[in-house]
Amino acid sequence: MRIFPLLVCALIYTFTFAQDDKTLRSIYDMALTKSEAYDNLRYLCKDIGARLSGSSEADSAVAWGKRTLESLNLDTVYLQEITVPHWERGKREKVYFFNEKGKNALKVSALGGSVSTGLNQFIKGQVLEVKSIEELNDLEDSMVRGKVVFFNRPMDPKLISTFSAYGSCVDQRYAGATEASKKGAIAVVIRSMNLRNDDFPHTGSMGYEEGVDSIPAFAVSTNDANYLSENIKNHKELELSLKSHCKTYPDRISYNVIGEIKGSEYPNEYITVGGHIDSWDIGEGAQDDGAGVVQSIEVLHLLKMMDLKPKHTIRVVLFMNEENGNRGGLGYAERAASEKEKHLMALESDRGGFSPRGFSINGTEKQLNEISKWKSLFEPYGIHEFKMGFAGVDINPLKDDKICLIGLSPDSQRYFDHHHSDNDIFEHVNKRELELGAASMTSLIYLIDKYWIY
Amino acid sequence: MRIFPLLVCALIYTFTFAQDDKTLRSIYDMALTKSEAYDNLRYLCKDIGARLSGSSEADSAVAWGKRTLESLNLDTVYLQEITVPHWERGKREKVYFFNEKGKNALKVSALGGSVSTGLNQFIKGQVLEVKSIEELNDLEDSMVRGKVVFFNRPMDPKLISTFSAYGSCVDQRYAGATEASKKGAIAVVIRSMNLRNDDFPHTGSMGYEEGVDSIPAFAVSTNDANYLSENIKNHKELELSLKSHCKTYPDRISYNVIGEIKGSEYPNEYITVGGHIDSWDIGEGAQDDGAGVVQSIEVLHLLKMMDLKPKHTIRVVLFMNEENGNRGGLGYAERAASEKEKHLMALESDRGGFSPRGFSINGTEKQLNEISKWKSLFEPYGIHEFKMGFAGVDINPLKDDKICLIGLSPDSQRYFDHHHSDNDIFEHVNKRELELGAASMTSLIYLIDKYWIY
Repeated sequence: MRIFPLLVCALIYTFTFAQDDKTLRSIYDMALTKSEAYDNLRYLCKDIGARLSGSSEADSAVAWGKRTLESLNLDTVYLQEITVPHWERGKREKVYFFNEKGKNALKVSALGGSVSTGLNQFIKGQVLEVKSIEELNDLEDSMVRGKVVFFNRPMDPKLISTFSAYGSCVDQRYAGATEASKKGAIAVVIRSMNLRNDDFPHTGSMGYEEGVDSIPAFAVSTNDANYLSENIKNHKELELSLKSHCKTYPDRISYNVIGEIKGSEYPNEYITVGGHIDSWDIGEGAQDDGAGVVQSIEVLHLLKMMDLKPKHTIRVVLFMNEENGNRGGLGYAERAASEKEKHLMALESDRGGFSPRGFSINGTEKQLNEISKWKSLFEPYGIHEFKMGFAGVDINPLKDDKICLIGLSPDSQRYFDHHHSDNDIFEHVNKRELELGAASMTSLIYLIDKYWIY
Repeated sequence: MRIFPLLVCALIYTFTFAQDDKTLRSIYDMALTKSEAYDNLRYLCKDIGARLSGSSEADSAVAWGKRTLESLNLDTVYLQEITVPHWERGKREKVYFFNEKGKNALKVSALGGSVSTGLNQFIKGQVLEVKSIEELNDLEDSMVRGKVVFFNRPMDPKLISTFSAYGSCVDQRYAGATEASKKGAIAVVIRSMNLRNDDFPHTGSMGYEEGVDSIPAFAVSTNDANYLSENIKNHKELELSLKSHCKTYPDRISYNVIGEIKGSEYPNEYITVGGHIDSWDIGEGAQDDGAGVVQSIEVLHLLKMMDLKPKHTIRVVLFMNEENGNRGGLGYAERAASEKEKHLMALESDRGGFSPRGFSINGTEKQLNEISKWKSLFEPYGIHEFKMGFAGVDINPLKDDKICLIGLSPDSQRYFDHHHSDNDIFEHVNKRELELGAASMTSLIYLIDKYWIY
């Protein structure tokens, strides 16, 4: 007696999934044959290039983003005004020391937001190597005063997720200058957040604390961090000379770029997909986050090409200023709150355009369970990982107890070879990997739009 | 009453797996911090380089392999003699055509085993484009006679596994020359087996048929295949001029390189792990298959470093001549049969040093089920795919109804960007991805040695 309804359920389930199986197959087929993501990325990287908030390149990227969304024949395309910080590196930095071989120039890059060493002037101090802020704090102030503190803790290679390795290491970069300044240091040099040994310095954001002197901060390549460390062992009073030219200017006006396909049944309920259109000022911002931007655009392009009409409004947001302020993400969430917009889900791609492995879900257990039911649909595409975790910086301010935030999780092994460095260029993004990510994002949005229970 | 034994089973299971969990964690930790695989690969690629069977570089690779295994302090290291084909490319090939712009040189590479166009001499013929052997066979012989047949079927981008895309396309390369020759063609040009559009010609093996004239065969880069195809559309009687210098010499003596850790309980029962030490003569054979070679060596290095004493004999085999004859794989299987060696399992890595995704198992359903029980042990390392499938060319001749053949399955998206081309160089192998593969192989061998039921 109880078997009959079970059977019906099983049949409905099988039938539904068979349909979805076909739709996902079509999405992947389309992405792997008709996607514009790779060509879009080439333009963004090669014709515009690095695009830090407040720069003219960031303005060009906004104009490009709007133009590109307009070409998709969406229902709405508009700019959302925000103000952004404006920091410029100026001329490339110089750091060197002398040893018995003569002058040794290190491969360095000022951290984003750093003050300069003063008008075209080298500063000089004995270098003090530590592995952590804790190790620094255990030292007497007199040991630190007047010195250049060198934070040299490497990312832990044993962590399989390189984002975990980054998370447990990046405090040096973000807070190192302030902590060293409190003890009287004159500058800091930070080992680049990179698991590889190579010659690229990796910049990134840092913060100063009110009431604490702002001192200049530099990243040094991993090879040169190792070289400097060896030299410190052999030369007890090694001195570093450092020069940087960076400067913070008044805030500027900039924009999030937004496009929408209106929902056929629930036009006032939103599913957001996005990446950030700004990048650091070195390299081309290809993996971080040109890839996420063109994948997010591609989600709407694929829906349009396949004539998949969503029930809810699908909104793509190219967020400005993720790298040094998150003003785009904050502004978007503020606007959503003040307009009382109902947001069901937001999906971000900001972990590079590598082979997609799964999704990182910042939501309720129930939401994770609902999404996990679709696992078998994704398996043919190598998508296996549906886990609770952080979703993305730009969408994070949307968090409340209802919305489900989701991050695309690509393979993370190569990400920090590129991140925030001159090595983050178009050539290192693989077309197929990028397209598979876009197809995975589109598939998830298709299923959420179709089945979401709230 | 029935709950008690179940509980005991569950406890035993949990306890056993907790131990294995720890051992796998140690294997991965060790691989990610103490592996020599990457440095070994650098030597093999940069100090030896391309190493086609019969070349002096292949001899150097054998000597290096033996030296490297000897440095691991194994129980046995020896060479296994085989004879190998000896084909040489000679000077790089030239193929060109004229159009209204003048002379257009194409980026080409003779296929491995091809005959030359004759002593330092161009041959010339009208080009005929086809998409498949079937399309060719449907043509009248008179349409083909005296012409150069251009096989231009691209790999199918919709197939998620690029190896499936390769498998359904490579017939053009292997048999195209023979089929075209049967209809009177004077040469063939084959679109490179590459999913990307780029400038690298990709060589690879081809065969001739007895009683059919051997005609010269070339691979052309995907960009130039597209360019040639466009020109054919606009110039009905486009003629290609082709020159190649390749030559087959008498077979030479070469070797498989073998090392063993003797089993503590079953020294006469073997688990083999290997990759192939030969490569094509262009590029550096980094992904194909330097990666597999250094990963296989690393399995024994990790077992030694961790003092994990296997019950069965673990044998690493650096196979010679996978690329153009598989004499190493055939010779190894023959020797195993004539010595009546009992082989439990053989594991091959010959799909590149990319992030490992799973294992491809060529064995019985029961063997697949046994191995699949360990799935949860591998999940923390991103290994999810345990599927029936082809395991590897070198180990394939060992196949009988008892042995389980297994291939490491790394992410396949980038493999054919490199395969058999000048683009297969050390710089494109990521250290962590390589090490994760070696750790996955070691973990599987550890579990099979511990639990195998036969």
